[in-house]
Amino acid sequence: MTKGFAQRLFAAVDAKRSAAMVGLDPRLEQLPEPFRARALTGGADAAANALREWHRALLDVIAPLTPAVKPQAAFFERLGAPGIAALADAVEQAHAREILVVMDAKRGDIGSTAEAYAEAWLGGGHGGHALPRSDALTVNPYLGEDACEPFLAAAKSSGAGLFFLVKTSNPGAGTFQDHGTPPLAEVVALRVCAWGEALRNASGWSDVGAVVGATRPEELARFRALMPHTPFLLPGYGAQGATAAGLAPAFDAQGHGAIVNASRSVLNAHARADLQHLSGWETRTEAALREMVEDLRAATSAPR
Amino acid sequence: MTKGFAQRLFAAVDAKRSAAMVGLDPRLEQLPEPFRARALTGGADAAANALREWHRALLDVIAPLTPAVKPQAAFFERLGAPGIAALADAVEQAHAREILVVMDAKRGDIGSTAEAYAEAWLGGGHGGHALPRSDALTVNPYLGEDACEPFLAAAKSSGAGLFFLVKTSNPGAGTFQDHGTPPLAEVVALRVCAWGEALRNASGWSDVGAVVGATRPEELARFRALMPHTPFLLPGYGAQGATAAGLAPAFDAQGHGAIVNASRSVLNAHARADLQHLSGWETRTEAALREMVEDLRAATSAPR
Repeated sequence: MTKGFAQRLFAAVDAKRSAAMVGLDPRLEQLPEPFRARALTGGADAAANALREWHRALLDVIAPLTPAVKPQAAFFERLGAPGIAALADAVEQAHAREILVVMDAKRGDIGSTAEAYAEAWLGGGHGGHALPRSDALTVNPYLGEDACEPFLAAAKSSGAGLFFLVKTSNPGAGTFQDHGTPPLAEVVALRVCAWGEALRNASGWSDVGAVVGATRPEELARFRALMPHTPFLLPGYGAQGATAAGLAPAFDAQGHGAIVNASRSVLNAHARADLQHLSGWETRTEAALREMVEDLRAATSAPR
Repeated sequence: MTKGFAQRLFAAVDAKRSAAMVGLDPRLEQLPEPFRARALTGGADAAANALREWHRALLDVIAPLTPAVKPQAAFFERLGAPGIAALADAVEQAHAREILVVMDAKRGDIGSTAEAYAEAWLGGGHGGHALPRSDALTVNPYLGEDACEPFLAAAKSSGAGLFFLVKTSNPGAGTFQDHGTPPLAEVVALRVCAWGEALRNASGWSDVGAVVGATRPEELARFRALMPHTPFLLPGYGAQGATAAGLAPAFDAQGHGAIVNASRSVLNAHARADLQHLSGWETRTEAALREMVEDLRAATSAPR
């Protein structure tokens, strides 16, 4: 990787003319057929094989419209070792289609354990051949600055990106993230911004990003002011209720600075009542994703 | 599992007359021979096979002296799918030797993703046969109360335990955990205590525990007062600098209420200069662990 993550991400956004990221959250019972039946008729091995087929087919459909995918590690982990192998395959297949991979694993630990997590997801694992490298990783900052340092070091040495959780998209995010004056999330935001200063590229954006829920447009301008050079991963579009309205402050005039994630609204488009006139899951999935891309273009500066 | 986690944990502490937990943090280059050479001479498959052999041998040595082990998921994850298979084997082998397993994965996410993590580690994975169930799981609470709820539901339905991160053992833990008045860690502590009320057993202890660094004895009495019925996982003994002195407030008169983790000071005992008069890694490992057990007995009410 000769260029840093932010540069690769926004070049991909420009190339695809899309700020829409698709979350890979494979809920077996919600897959379209024939993948659902294949995934549910056997054990973890059969399910993992079905996911391998599903993601290859899905990536073919979404590749022209999405610069990046966000695999959700939990749904692969629950299939044990075969699930991790299916996740590795999804990463390789995304890369083969020129789609970046933001691994949503929300890892966080201290010292040499944090190093091991960074090596697992950003370094290609032990010896560089256990897991394919992701382009970026989500990280939980609760353990503190010294616990985040090994992830920052890995990003710096490999050109990978990081997205630190600042304010999440769930209704109860404020339980701890809003604690104190100023609220904890703002304290985290300032640190994330500072950590990223050393990793800014020529265009000004840092390889160190932040997760800010797309479900919180009312807070977005404030977080953008606190983190002016920090790419935002905005989760929660679609099934979690967020729309493109209000997301404009996350983007700069070139349509860079943010990537908006949708998972279920795209993955489950095959079952959408208003798309049943379209034939096949592929057509419905493409329609739902195209709708999101257009929605983002209409409401923000996302490239058109 | 007919009994809840706290009941099983403290019964095991009584049976082994030990409050010492051993962390399974397999750093390949620090394994004793012949495991080290086997782990480093091939790729991820060879390393995973070496870990399988190492953990079986290690568990034989430590079984009489430890009620529970704490595998550190990161060191297995960095070996990809073969590493996860080796982790599953370690869990099964610990159970076969009547050792409880506290999975140190520090997971945390929202909604159905949190459910997937709970299912992965506490529910036996997809269909109950992907991963062997751990007895307890460490959880990062940053995402908020609704994000912790799926883990609590899983603990309740399966009799598993949880250890929420409250105050970690690293030097920089305070970056965010000390934010605000009262400090965030105390706010988290009160929630963890409240979440655990519905999961208290006959002896009074809850299945919902807390991680409080053993490196912070000065704060221990305060956290015990905030969480009177919450089992404490105290990491940081040994290589991170904590001793048994000052850990007494975590225990009740019966020597229940806390479990103290050591990883490197036990795992790397084979290389300790002052133990070289003992022959073989097994003897040195046993000596280091016995030393820790005695240290805890002398300084706290841990069972003798």
